Amino acid sequence: VILTVTLNVALDITYHLERVDWGHVNRVARHGTRAGGKGINVARVVTTLGHTATIAGFAGGATGEAIREEVSRSGIAHHLVAIAGESRRTVAVVEGGRTTLFNELGPEVSPDEWAEFRETYSKLLRDCGVVVLSGSLPPGLPADAYAVLVRGAREAGALTLVDTEGAALEHALAAHPDVVKPNVHEIQALSGRECAEANDVAAAARWLRDAGARGAVITRGADGMVASNDEGTWLGLPPERLTGNETGAGDAVAAALAMGLEDGRPWPGPVADAIAAGAAALMSPVAGDVDLKAYRRFRHLVRLQEV
Amino acid sequence: VILTVTLNVALDITYHLERVDWGHVNRVARHGTRAGGKGINVARVVTTLGHTATIAGFAGGATGEAIREEVSRSGIAHHLVAIAGESRRTVAVVEGGRTTLFNELGPEVSPDEWAEFRETYSKLLRDCGVVVLSGSLPPGLPADAYAVLVRGAREAGALTLVDTEGAALEHALAAHPDVVKPNVHEIQALSGRECAEANDVAAAARWLRDAGARGAVITRGADGMVASNDEGTWLGLPPERLTGNETGAGDAVAAALAMGLEDGRPWPGPVADAIAAGAAALMSPVAGDVDLKAYRRFRHLVRLQEV
Repeated sequence: VILTVTLNVALDITYHLERVDWGHVNRVARHGTRAGGKGINVARVVTTLGHTATIAGFAGGATGEAIREEVSRSGIAHHLVAIAGESRRTVAVVEGGRTTLFNELGPEVSPDEWAEFRETYSKLLRDCGVVVLSGSLPPGLPADAYAVLVRGAREAGALTLVDTEGAALEHALAAHPDVVKPNVHEIQALSGRECAEANDVAAAARWLRDAGARGAVITRGADGMVASNDEGTWLGLPPERLTGNETGAGDAVAAALAMGLEDGRPWPGPVADAIAAGAAALMSPVAGDVDLKAYRRFRHLVRLQEV
Repeated sequence: VILTVTLNVALDITYHLERVDWGHVNRVARHGTRAGGKGINVARVVTTLGHTATIAGFAGGATGEAIREEVSRSGIAHHLVAIAGESRRTVAVVEGGRTTLFNELGPEVSPDEWAEFRETYSKLLRDCGVVVLSGSLPPGLPADAYAVLVRGAREAGALTLVDTEGAALEHALAAHPDVVKPNVHEIQALSGRECAEANDVAAAARWLRDAGARGAVITRGADGMVASNDEGTWLGLPPERLTGNETGAGDAVAAALAMGLEDGRPWPGPVADAIAAGAAALMSPVAGDVDLKAYRRFRHLVRLQEV
């Protein structure tokens, strides 16, 4: 079982409009509402690709209740620790090809709620061999929250993948996660390194490993990704040049990498799968959805090159 | 007690941003969530201005639960009939002086749910002398829903104010409500009459009375309003030229007119109060809020002229 941790769960609302009349009233004829947050998307992709996922996180207030209901409908096991604060929403306004996203800040999580989460987490680790830690930290949590969870997983014998940025990523590195998976913008911001060319990105991946990660994958949008671990460093390219929803793509990449960890498969096999999953997710407008047929086709078309 | 009926209740979400980055991710540092829909705003203003209000409407799903919670916090008595559909949300994006509104369509209301509402409504009429019927009709309700409720109120001895537009207003007129309160755009669209000048608006108000309304108030934004009933026709101007949230202003106007009905005060006294309440609401960014001090000051500064 792959445990996905989303400390900053959200209710994702999407409004589809042909054209937005800015400054005026817009009737939204078509809208969608889903439980969101990167780890929840990862769990959906894991499930679609045939592995079993369990969701952990926080939920509070009426919005938290809506999140719980929606996750329950998905059929994925979930353990959302109740908090006093109100869970956040995100609103995506999609008009034609353009999406404008409004992200509420997460609710404050108290020290007691964080302690209760760690207790739930310890129990869940009895059944989970891989943990995916995704997204930003809500206010109130210590900056080293992911480092604490990575260490807890290792003590329980579970492997870890961390997909976050900034200070949360920096602290997590010190706990030696098995894989980290920033995108090229996030690693540029954290390392201060220029990452324009593939060689720069490969150097950044090695920098992440020097900083503590056992394996590092840096996603580059339409330019594919760079993966590096003890066994080598690879440059991977998607089968075709695609554009689309990059949040969803990153979560699909994390899902495929976590499945590789769970199956104990050495790289670059899981890296190729991750590229295929990311490409198949790019084609879906909804984060957490992958086109399974496209994924299967892409797996054999991914181009990987050791550098 | 003034009963406000909101058949299309909403959860109103407001995002305050300094500048929106269209096509990109926007972090919303400040947001508000309120139960909304015009009748709920009317009930808030009635309460602020010292009368007692009761709220009636429909609520369903997790969003309906959030609406119920929020109305409960306001302390106003409420009777929201449970429906199978999910209550709608509205999202207002406020950047500087510009507001872009996204309105979800209301959920479908079934014939059984509508019958249950009418039963609740009959019971509430035992204690309510005035009924305010506000806003659009949700899908599933008959076009003459307001006419049915106006007739039910009259049989119970209650006076009625209808604030809606289009077919819902047209049908309501046939049931002879005591006051109708469209704005100048709504009456132009319904009557096909040009309403540029005060005289045109006065003629439109008389047209509304010919069509069945006992009294008609047409709001004209910063240009004030025209009111007409058996006792005369008046042109009212706000104390100063103000701009702001016109939805909130219209609901404050309805609240003051309903209070006049409840107190049995002849026009134009309540019309002057309505102009003052509308002006005091324009100054608040949140629909349903009026600045009580401004209202009291404005009451003595309103200019009324019989035409």
